[in-house]
Amino acid sequence: MKSKQFVVIGLGRFGSSVAKTLYQLGNEVMAIDNDEETVQSISDYVTHAVQADATDEATIRSLGIRNFDVAVVTIGSDIQSSVMVTLLLKELGIKYVIAKAHNELHAKVLYKIGADRVVFPERDMGVRVAHNLCSSNILDYIELSPDYNIMEIAAIEEWHNKSFRELDMRNKYGFNVMAIKRSNDINISPKADDVIRPGDILVVISETDNIRKFESDKLR
Amino acid sequence: MKSKQFVVIGLGRFGSSVAKTLYQLGNEVMAIDNDEETVQSISDYVTHAVQADATDEATIRSLGIRNFDVAVVTIGSDIQSSVMVTLLLKELGIKYVIAKAHNELHAKVLYKIGADRVVFPERDMGVRVAHNLCSSNILDYIELSPDYNIMEIAAIEEWHNKSFRELDMRNKYGFNVMAIKRSNDINISPKADDVIRPGDILVVISETDNIRKFESDKLR
Ligand SMILES: Nc1ncnc2c1ncn2[C@@H]1O[C@H](COP(=O)(O)OP(=O)(O)OP(=O)(O)O)[C@@H](O)[C@H]1O
Ligand SMILES: Nc1ncnc2c1ncn2[C@@H]1O[C@H](COP(=O)(O)OP(=O)(O)OP(=O)(O)O)[C@@H](O)[C@H]1O
Ligand SMILES: [Ca+2]
Ligand SMILES: [Ca+2]
Ligand SMILES: [Ca+2]
Ligand SMILES: [Ca+2]
Repeated sequence: MKSKQFVVIGLGRFGSSVAKTLYQLGNEVMAIDNDEETVQSISDYVTHAVQADATDEATIRSLGIRNFDVAVVTIGSDIQSSVMVTLLLKELGIKYVIAKAHNELHAKVLYKIGADRVVFPERDMGVRVAHNLCSSNILDYIELSPDYNIMEIAAIEEWHNKSFRELDMRNKYGFNVMAIKRSNDINISPKADDVIRPGDILVVISETDNIRKFESDKLR
Repeated sequence: MKSKQFVVIGLGRFGSSVAKTLYQLGNEVMAIDNDEETVQSISDYVTHAVQADATDEATIRSLGIRNFDVAVVTIGSDIQSSVMVTLLLKELGIKYVIAKAHNELHAKVLYKIGADRVVFPERDMGVRVAHNLCSSNILDYIELSPDYNIMEIAAIEEWHNKSFRELDMRNKYGFNVMAIKRSNDINISPKADDVIRPGDILVVISETDNIRKFESDKLR
C-alpha cells in the first residue's frame, strides 16, 4: 500500500490539475515549472514545488528525478522544450513518461523518443463538448471504444411517464440504460417497471452508430 | 431534423476540436480566429472559416452572427478578449453562449456577464488523467455527479477466473459492473455466472468514496 512518486513538469491548467489530483489521491508529487509565481501558487497542493528549467540536465539530475515512478510532461506550447524534457527523462531511466502533445506531429516525435503515452487533453475534451452541444439533451459523452460510447441524456418528451418495459429502448434504439439520475439521486440498474419522469437523466451505453442515428432522428 | 448553426470563436486546440466535431456531426459551423494561418488550416473542416478580431462589434454584426443558435467562445489565454466577446454575443441576443475559462475568477466573470455555460477543458481532463495514472489499472475515469463516477478498470489478479457471483463486487466494493471489454468485444450487462479473464476491462459505476477506498486498498 505504498503511494507512488510522480513528477509533473509544466504547470499550465492541465499540468496543475494533474499534479493536484495526484496529490489529493495520496501520492508524492513533485511539481516543476520555470515560472516562479506558478510554482508558488501550487506549493500548498503538492509535496514539493520547484522552480527550474526542466531542459537543464544538471538541474533535473540534482532533483533526484531518476528515482520517480512516473513523469508527466505537460509543457504545452513550447514543443521543443517538451521534446527535450521527455528525451532527458527517458535517458535518466524513468519507466513511465506521459506527455501532452500540441498536435499529431508533436505526438509522433514524442513516441519516437520514447514517451510511453501521449495525451491530447484539449482535442479530446473538444470532442466531448461538441457532442454535448449538438443536442441540448446530450449532457455528456464518453468514448468507451471506437465503437461504443457512454452518454448522459436528458429524457426526451416522448419518454416521459413511460416505463422501460413500454419503451423497450434496447430493441428500439440499441440503448442499454445503466443508471437514472433524478435530482441528486442516482438509481443504478433501473428495473423494467421503473418510470421515466420529466427531468430525468439517463446514463446509456450504446454503439456509436446507434447514438448517431438517435441524435439525427430524435434530437433535431 | 434541421441541423443547428454554431459559431466557434478562437481556434486553439480545444476550439478547433469543438468546431470540427460539430461539423462532422452534420451542423453548420462558422469558425472565427484572428490568425490567418489558423483560419486557413481549418477551412476544409467547417462550413465557413473567417479571419476576424471577434472583439470588433462591427465585424461580428456584419457576419450575421446574431442568427446563430449557439456560440462557443474558446479564446483561452486572452481573458479580456474572451470576456468582451462573450458580452458582445449575449448583447446581440444569442440564446446559448458557452465559454472556456482559464480559472475560477474568469469563470465567475463569464457567468456574471451572461454566459450560459462555462467549461474548463484542461482542468477536467487533468483530473481524469491523474486518476488513470494513479493506478495503471484505472484506464478511464468520468465524473457522473459529485458523488458518482464511472471508471474503466483492468481486472486485478485476484478477480481472474472468478465469476461475478463469487466476487460479489456490489457488496464487497459497492461496484456496479455495467460492461466488460474483452479484446474488441463489449459485453453489456454481464450475468452473475460470467467469468472474468485476465486482460478484461470492467466498466463500473460507483460512489466516489468506494472508488477511492478500492484505489488505496487494492491498487497500490
Ligand atoms: N523548460 C521548461 N521548464 C519548466 N517549465 C516549463 C518549461 N517550458 C515551459 N514550462 C512551463 O510549462 C507550463 C505549461 O506550458 P504552456 O502554458 O505553454 O502549455 P499549455 O498547453 O498552454 O497549458 P494549458 O493549456 O494546460 O494551460 C507553463 O507554466 C510554463 O511555464
Ligand atoms: N479577439 C480575438 N478574435 C478572434 N480570435 C482570437 C481573439 N483572441 C484570441 N483569439 C484566438 O483564440 C485562439 C485560442 O486562444 P489561446 O491559444 O490563447 O487559447 P488556449 O486556451 O491556449 O487554447 P488551447 O489550449 O485550446 O490550444 C487562438 O488561435 C487566438 O488566435
Ligand atoms: Ca498556457
Ligand atoms: Ca508543500
Ligand atoms: Ca494556445
Ligand atoms: Ca490549453
